[in-house]
Amino acid sequence: MKRITIVSIFLILFIVCKALAQTNNIKVTNINELNSAIKNSNPGDNIVLANGVWKDVEIKFYGKGTKEKPITLTAEAQGKVSIEGVSNLKIGGSYLIVKNLYFKNGHTPTKNVIQFKIDNNRIANNCTVTQCVIEEFTQPDRDVSDHWVEFWGRHNEFSNNYLTGKSNFGPTIMIRLEGNENIYNYHKIINNHFGPRPRKGGPHGETIQLGDSGTSMTPSHTLVANNFFDRCNGEIEIISSKSNFNEFRNNVFFESEGSLVLRHGNYAIIDGNVFIGNDNSKFIGGIRVINTGHWITNNYFYKINGEAFRSALAVMNGIPKSPLNRYNQVTDVVVAHNSFIDCKSPWQFSVGSNVSQSDVLPATEIRSARPERVEIANNLIYNNVADTFPIVNYDKVDGVNFNNNIINNENNGEVKPEGLITKTVSITKKSHNLFVPNENMKDVYMGFDFETITKDLFGNDRTTNNSIGAIVNPVKENAVLIDKSKFGTSWFNPEKAKAKSKTINVSTSEELISKLKEANSGDIISLNKGTFKLNSSLVIDKAISIVSKNKKSQLVFSSQNTAFEMHPKGYLTLKNVVLTGNKSQNTFNTLDKNMSKAYNLHLDNVEIKNFMSVLEVSKGSFADSITVANSVIKNCERGFMLNKEKNDGGDYNAEFVTITNTTFDGIQEVVLDYYRGGYDESTIGGNLTLKNNTFTNSGKAEKDQILIKNRGIVNVEFANNTFKNNPVKVIAILWGEKGQEPGENTIINSGNIEVVQNLELKLMY
Amino acid sequence: MKRITIVSIFLILFIVCKALAQTNNIKVTNINELNSAIKNSNPGDNIVLANGVWKDVEIKFYGKGTKEKPITLTAEAQGKVSIEGVSNLKIGGSYLIVKNLYFKNGHTPTKNVIQFKIDNNRIANNCTVTQCVIEEFTQPDRDVSDHWVEFWGRHNEFSNNYLTGKSNFGPTIMIRLEGNENIYNYHKIINNHFGPRPRKGGPHGETIQLGDSGTSMTPSHTLVANNFFDRCNGEIEIISSKSNFNEFRNNVFFESEGSLVLRHGNYAIIDGNVFIGNDNSKFIGGIRVINTGHWITNNYFYKINGEAFRSALAVMNGIPKSPLNRYNQVTDVVVAHNSFIDCKSPWQFSVGSNVSQSDVLPATEIRSARPERVEIANNLIYNNVADTFPIVNYDKVDGVNFNNNIINNENNGEVKPEGLITKTVSITKKSHNLFVPNENMKDVYMGFDFETITKDLFGNDRTTNNSIGAIVNPVKENAVLIDKSKFGTSWFNPEKAKAKSKTINVSTSEELISKLKEANSGDIISLNKGTFKLNSSLVIDKAISIVSKNKKSQLVFSSQNTAFEMHPKGYLTLKNVVLTGNKSQNTFNTLDKNMSKAYNLHLDNVEIKNFMSVLEVSKGSFADSITVANSVIKNCERGFMLNKEKNDGGDYNAEFVTITNTTFDGIQEVVLDYYRGGYDESTIGGNLTLKNNTFTNSGKAEKDQILIKNRGIVNVEFANNTFKNNPVKVIAILWGEKGQEPGENTIINSGNIEVVQNLELKLMY
Repeated sequence: MKRITIVSIFLILFIVCKALAQTNNIKVTNINELNSAIKNSNPGDNIVLANGVWKDVEIKFYGKGTKEKPITLTAEAQGKVSIEGVSNLKIGGSYLIVKNLYFKNGHTPTKNVIQFKIDNNRIANNCTVTQCVIEEFTQPDRDVSDHWVEFWGRHNEFSNNYLTGKSNFGPTIMIRLEGNENIYNYHKIINNHFGPRPRKGGPHGETIQLGDSGTSMTPSHTLVANNFFDRCNGEIEIISSKSNFNEFRNNVFFESEGSLVLRHGNYAIIDGNVFIGNDNSKFIGGIRVINTGHWITNNYFYKINGEAFRSALAVMNGIPKSPLNRYNQVTDVVVAHNSFIDCKSPWQFSVGSNVSQSDVLPATEIRSARPERVEIANNLIYNNVADTFPIVNYDKVDGVNFNNNIINNENNGEVKPEGLITKTVSITKKSHNLFVPNENMKDVYMGFDFETITKDLFGNDRTTNNSIGAIVNPVKENAVLIDKSKFGTSWFNPEKAKAKSKTINVSTSEELISKLKEANSGDIISLNKGTFKLNSSLVIDKAISIVSKNKKSQLVFSSQNTAFEMHPKGYLTLKNVVLTGNKSQNTFNTLDKNMSKAYNLHLDNVEIKNFMSVLEVSKGSFADSITVANSVIKNCERGFMLNKEKNDGGDYNAEFVTITNTTFDGIQEVVLDYYRGGYDESTIGGNLTLKNNTFTNSGKAEKDQILIKNRGIVNVEFANNTFKNNPVKVIAILWGEKGQEPGENTIINSGNIEVVQNLELKLMY
Repeated sequence: MKRITIVSIFLILFIVCKALAQTNNIKVTNINELNSAIKNSNPGDNIVLANGVWKDVEIKFYGKGTKEKPITLTAEAQGKVSIEGVSNLKIGGSYLIVKNLYFKNGHTPTKNVIQFKIDNNRIANNCTVTQCVIEEFTQPDRDVSDHWVEFWGRHNEFSNNYLTGKSNFGPTIMIRLEGNENIYNYHKIINNHFGPRPRKGGPHGETIQLGDSGTSMTPSHTLVANNFFDRCNGEIEIISSKSNFNEFRNNVFFESEGSLVLRHGNYAIIDGNVFIGNDNSKFIGGIRVINTGHWITNNYFYKINGEAFRSALAVMNGIPKSPLNRYNQVTDVVVAHNSFIDCKSPWQFSVGSNVSQSDVLPATEIRSARPERVEIANNLIYNNVADTFPIVNYDKVDGVNFNNNIINNENNGEVKPEGLITKTVSITKKSHNLFVPNENMKDVYMGFDFETITKDLFGNDRTTNNSIGAIVNPVKENAVLIDKSKFGTSWFNPEKAKAKSKTINVSTSEELISKLKEANSGDIISLNKGTFKLNSSLVIDKAISIVSKNKKSQLVFSSQNTAFEMHPKGYLTLKNVVLTGNKSQNTFNTLDKNMSKAYNLHLDNVEIKNFMSVLEVSKGSFADSITVANSVIKNCERGFMLNKEKNDGGDYNAEFVTITNTTFDGIQEVVLDYYRGGYDESTIGGNLTLKNNTFTNSGKAEKDQILIKNRGIVNVEFANNTFKNNPVKVIAILWGEKGQEPGENTIINSGNIEVVQNLELKLMY
């Protein structure tokens, strides 16, 4: 009897398990088969895309799986199924899983690459996208906006994916909250590797955006956890949280030029994240705080040197009774148990205060409402090299309570709260970038609800053994800040093996043209002695250096076409050469359109003469970096024309323009026109360095009588230049409010350098 | 053995029960004893205030009770302990209970009568105030603002209390949310009887306000349930919800001149409430909707005849990207399963649309954002007398989905959604004001999350048996809309027995003066034939009628003091008398200050002559109603001067001014000056009726050359008057935007009646 019972139980268990495990593999080889498989799918089905390139496919994956028996769409073999061309994927229904797809060599025909909704009647719930890669699946036109992943519905998950190289407008991942079907979403964005996103030059380059101001009152409850943000440089906001109750836990922000920004919405939790900067960059930020009720705990900041908007902890001023899309006052925020290691002035308050700009901005733009009821407690500031201004304040700091924070150096700043205590702290480097105090600092302040902070950065218990800062001892032996095994797919290797660069000698024009075409990215073309006559454009669509082998070789251009045509990803280095035109062409042009990715241009010891413009660009083009050093540019109509991005939405045509030790002579019109239009403090870019140059006999045909135009560019260094006999009224206009001032320049018979405190700005919303 | 066990168990149980039930009664007879008892209190203590009047006491009730053993503060006998004079109560700590206190004859010295916080370190949590009465415990100066009950902390309860007669500035109950200690509060305001709150004349007269715009982003979770709002006429908002996640369930709003307003904040639940109006009032409203995500279900509206802001269901237009304290767009709101019985045009959309006022208002004030993603489904509109305009729209209705709503009449309005279906509905009156369809209307629309609407108005199950409208059959036999046994205290009777009014004959001035003093409120003083000479003011501080017994008696005033001095609650009716001054005094004056409550003035067949002003008022005074009928007013310097409330915050000096069949002759300056200043559409008051009057030879010394001033008064009827030989430029200026237009008036030699479409308004925030 007993035996029969046991056997029966086993039998039942077996059947149940069998039923649960039962999957029905359906292999499909083209879109029609796929559509049919989807249409006929049942819970437990496993639809398998055959290996190969799936080109120009718009997949609508609809089905109703169950929790136990989801419907899966996957690849025959990981990495062997790529979605290419003009393609996308929409998911609708419930308990669907998409995995192992590889999006590359293309872009979406719609607003999204992966969308968790087919239409309003087919929204995804409890669906998962995992083990997928989206690589440079970016719009040909950088100005065309899209999202790579757009969330709708509830309880959807995006996990263990790798995304990189989005260079067009639009956040990489967007959470949408319009409609009750999409609130209380509890989406999970977990364990992904967000590979490098290049600088975009202006706003709309977030890696994740959660809602927008129009839905900023909605309860979202999205979890963003255990992701690796790896040089996500799209814009000043890596993550822009614009809804309520989102949670950001245990992510690593690695050398990403921006911040985790609580832009709209309230009651976010930012716990256990790691922010890693370096000694070289002021662009890498931490957390920027706006609005109400956030808890920022257990975070570890290392070498964050950003200022103001990009400081490790930037607490903003709000606009009194702010419009929905602007800046609410910061209130009731808790910042507790964080560690700031080797950061520069990590705490900045009333960031964005702009009371001084009342003349040029309407009252509804003036951020004068200081933070209130903000609790800063139990944090550690540690610097190996003393930073005696740990706090920067842009207004009075009267609404912030400091309790039991410890700093290992003197605080010589204007704000000296009693609750920031100078104390010797002995610290040990446990692993790369990880510094832990040798002893727990047990004088912990217990603020309201602080008993809910039960764990430290590594998940260690705080209830029995607590300490100031993000970490409680003992730390486990092998603790690391970044554990790459947690992030991204199991099958895709984001580290591309670099081809070894080779040097190719060329002696004739024909050789130059053909070798340039054949060269691999990274190669160096070495010009033998002599003159190379060229009557067509040289196309630059990869990283290439052109250098003279010995004495400067000459490139002489006779066509009306541009001498060099810069394509997306064209990284051109010219060294030690002479470029001569016939006054009918430009030296460098970008493509007129489809400049989908950035280009770079580096000139060193180059002579440029007899051209129309040195550089002309198209509106959608973007140069990451343009450097000119030790060069001579003469007898041209115009210099560098980075002035076509005139949306006036905070965008611009180049991130860095650096001109040093260079002579401009006989440039008829403007020498440089570098433009960033519109009032949008959410872009703070444009970087111009002009040092140790000489400008002579230039600007005579410039109708505005300005030699150098840098309208709206935020960061400008302008020093040690010589201006002689330039018949203009104004050499340049600097922007006082951004801290711009001319260094020591020599000016002879050349107009003045003006400084304007506040530019009149065009509001963009 | 067994027996011993059982005995042991009983013993343990006994001890436990004993311990639980143990209360320690501590009777106190004065504030010192009370303070000492509070200081020494322990869980389980019952502090008993001895019977009597506790005058000028400021009680700070601090303690830490437990859930099982709270600390209680109570009265020796219900109704026998009154808190009077300049007194208040602050509660701080946890698990405290206050009961059976009676606040009357006084006011608070602070901003609150009962405050759930002593100071920021002693906030109340899990505390209860129950079985208390606050009766006319109102500030002497109406302009001084306070709250009768102010909530702080979490999980506090205000239950089974009776509150009435707050006539000063400030919501009766206020929920405060500044600071994390006070969010997620889950307060309960339940089973209270909110007795009449008089009209305040302007804003800040709410019965309950939950947060303010500055904390409108906070999660509040206050429950307001099973309360009786009994003629709460303080202002246009009976309840002003200004925070998130509040719930309003099963309340009765009885003839209250306002609405339940979702002013700021989102995701309110309004379920199972009853709104009762009558045939006479256009002031009684229903629910006004602003913001996002509210669910309005199972409510029953009966004879709600309000318009626009006060319509049964008013869905407003928002301001695009609204400032925090203005009007967000309505989105994602569900209105389902409500019944609208004998209401006039119950559904009004884009209420507050003011695009036409772009000339006089800044862009940030223009409500042009129409409701979006609003679901109106399964509602019933039933009218015994056909109302063929069930929907009023102030803008396009393009963001509202109508599904499966039923109406028993033709819909001849501009908006004719398919989802509002005309159908015969047979209905039965089940009890007073309760009408229920005879059969369930089962064609119910199932919108997103509609399965969560599981109950009807009376708690009947909808999951097995559903119907359009608020009620599902079968309804239990004895169902009533208002069950008064649920509301208020068990001991206080709000229905005062009315003293029978008596008639007192007087023949001499001395008699008149002494009898007036002695008279009870409601008495009639009957003047015998003749002339009464008076050289002092007659004080009116109760309801009194003065009438001539036969032919008009004369009251002749010789003092420079006002003839009649109106005190708070002075309700004067004059009938059939002649009042004569000597041109040195006014006929009626209010007190200069401390006009804590409204006064009324009714003149019928009265002749007034030879006075300075007919009526002069003080700034803080407020007349509920002034009526003048069949009278003659002549040879006075000025008429009715209701123009002292010049805060320009939407306040004014009288609610109703009605002048009919009356002759004004020889008034030197303005005949009526009735002022409401400031732009605040949250007051829509001031009501002026001027009909069938004659104005002659008046206004000649009026410096503005206006005969009748009604600046800012919203509701004006102006018809069938005759104006003859009044040397003014302008008779009156009407406000076109408020629908004011002159009826048929006869104008001879008297200037013009002007109509101005939009007044220039002063913004008040």
